[in-house]
Amino acid sequence: MPKIWTNSGDSHFLEPADLWESRLPRRLADLTPKADKDPDGEYETVRVDGQTFRRKLPTSAAVQFLENTRKAEGIRDARLRLGDLDHEGVWGEVIFPSLGMWSSTFRTPELLKACMRASNEWALEEVASVSDRYVVTAQVSTLVVEDAVTELEWAAGQGFRSVFLPTRPHPSAPDWHMADWEPLWRAAEQAGMVLAIHIGTDPVDLTSGKVGVAYRGPGGAVMNYTETTFSGQRFAMKLVASGALDRHPDLKVLISEGGASWIPFLGDRMREGYRQHHMAVRPKLTRDPKDILMTQVYASFQHDESAVAAYTAMGYRNVMFGSDYPHMEGTYGHTQDTLKELFDGVPVETRLRITQGAFAELFPHVPPAPADEV
Amino acid sequence: MPKIWTNSGDSHFLEPADLWESRLPRRLADLTPKADKDPDGEYETVRVDGQTFRRKLPTSAAVQFLENTRKAEGIRDARLRLGDLDHEGVWGEVIFPSLGMWSSTFRTPELLKACMRASNEWALEEVASVSDRYVVTAQVSTLVVEDAVTELEWAAGQGFRSVFLPTRPHPSAPDWHMADWEPLWRAAEQAGMVLAIHIGTDPVDLTSGKVGVAYRGPGGAVMNYTETTFSGQRFAMKLVASGALDRHPDLKVLISEGGASWIPFLGDRMREGYRQHHMAVRPKLTRDPKDILMTQVYASFQHDESAVAAYTAMGYRNVMFGSDYPHMEGTYGHTQDTLKELFDGVPVETRLRITQGAFAELFPHVPPAPADEV
Repeated sequence: MPKIWTNSGDSHFLEPADLWESRLPRRLADLTPKADKDPDGEYETVRVDGQTFRRKLPTSAAVQFLENTRKAEGIRDARLRLGDLDHEGVWGEVIFPSLGMWSSTFRTPELLKACMRASNEWALEEVASVSDRYVVTAQVSTLVVEDAVTELEWAAGQGFRSVFLPTRPHPSAPDWHMADWEPLWRAAEQAGMVLAIHIGTDPVDLTSGKVGVAYRGPGGAVMNYTETTFSGQRFAMKLVASGALDRHPDLKVLISEGGASWIPFLGDRMREGYRQHHMAVRPKLTRDPKDILMTQVYASFQHDESAVAAYTAMGYRNVMFGSDYPHMEGTYGHTQDTLKELFDGVPVETRLRITQGAFAELFPHVPPAPADEV
Repeated sequence: MPKIWTNSGDSHFLEPADLWESRLPRRLADLTPKADKDPDGEYETVRVDGQTFRRKLPTSAAVQFLENTRKAEGIRDARLRLGDLDHEGVWGEVIFPSLGMWSSTFRTPELLKACMRASNEWALEEVASVSDRYVVTAQVSTLVVEDAVTELEWAAGQGFRSVFLPTRPHPSAPDWHMADWEPLWRAAEQAGMVLAIHIGTDPVDLTSGKVGVAYRGPGGAVMNYTETTFSGQRFAMKLVASGALDRHPDLKVLISEGGASWIPFLGDRMREGYRQHHMAVRPKLTRDPKDILMTQVYASFQHDESAVAAYTAMGYRNVMFGSDYPHMEGTYGHTQDTLKELFDGVPVETRLRITQGAFAELFPHVPPAPADEV
């Protein structure tokens, strides 16, 4: 059977652990995260931006889990990565950074700004420069809106076409639906920067040593995984309900790894709330909230068999495949099998929309994928 | 155009405010909720089960909102209600009580048990006895599992076919996915009682005077409305992931008012988590989690245009219309318009499944709706 080429709306890269340490001036570098194992071998002491805390070291199962998700060399090497992509049949990729999870622990605006700049420069040099198939997401401070705007504009000038935003901003900042963020939405629209949101990026309390654990007990692993989609859905909901996307009709959002077939549902729900609770609704929107969601928000999925019908039967055109390379929630190692299963008996035009067209609409600068092999 | 008859998987009744006061022995009646307006006219003092707190009285907008949602006489009078139903074209109804929102504030197991029994007796006498079209949901303590089992079995003996459960149990009890609840699932399956879950019933802190307010600021009303669906999705997720529905294949769940087209999506997501994180998954299930969700969980929607495609294109058979009578999120006053819009051009068999068939599968004792008028 011929190879199916796809783009990916959700892929990952792992920066070197000393990226910030090595690129920041000493005064700021000293404030970046440092961890020392305690003599007992069970805890570590972490220092970051003037805070110190002890936390339990990950269990061996957790370490194994993390190693499995990082074993592909392409997660660290943008040249070797191309071999994996060609083998999997993945052409263009939206690539998310990994170090950013620390951002919510910083308290010093200047430090956070400097880390984001260092990460962006590193990503340009080490990833974006290697291939025009890579859509690397810029990072910005979400602590201070002016810093976010400045960095976004700088990044756009450097050729970035997308900016990563976490599902919730820094814990000290107002939430995404508040008017404070209006300058960022305006700047992103003007610069043609796609807002790329990766699920599961609500600020975490790193002191607990438990990232992404909302549930314990029977079914906990499946529930924790399932739960992560809601943070992405909330980001989309906030940008629609607050009027941000209505005021900026050229602003596009990509919600990665959270699935795609929730969009028509969430649109129906927001429309119902908007109409049935109209007496309490502020601001009024100039367009139907479902229409805004369906047209300005794109969403990527990995295996979901319902994704095709979200497009063909529910009218949601912005369904996008994502490989989640090289994480274990994704399709690395079985991308072709997944694609063949998903698109068996599906019209070519539908397949091309989901594998390539929606992505190309957001990132028209990426060269087209090879034609179908026959 | 001829009337379209439908059943409703989501309807409401308002008990008299003094139901518990009038039916409990004095010793317990004294512990039921009592509110006195403070002289300032802005606050009230509430006493319930040994706790006393002041809370802000609702704003005039909130009072107006509540009154709008209760203005149909049928919410208080089961006989007058039938006129409304006939006019709207609603035949059978799953009917939820309203007083139960207080349940999470009780701390005394005996008091909670007595209130639930009083509510159930009242519902039998005043609602269920009026028409076999009414599927009244029994109420049980969610503080003590043995009390829940005893009341469920009593209710089944009295003819109840469904039990209302809130999206999360009493704040002092373990969450629904924990093994503690196994006796309740076993009892419900054995008694043939459908678990009827109404969204937006997570325990609330009544002291705050703000029920259902997760967001403030721009878009808050739409966001608060949208948010409520997630609590229903979580209930379904917990009963699948914990293995409760796998161990009890004849146990059926109805999630009311939260929409229906999220089910195929959530099923895909749970399947992905189950498969891709298999090394961390406990318990293992004997069936695919999506199959369990799609077959044992029913879901009701009001206006969602995506609901029909969830059935026809995503294979979810248990989509059920719900009128939400007489609340303002529902279709009261425009049920026929909504049904005609939803089912315009849709095959009769599909319409009958969504309006009547899924409901009849859960509640075969309810007499069939009148045949289509022609």
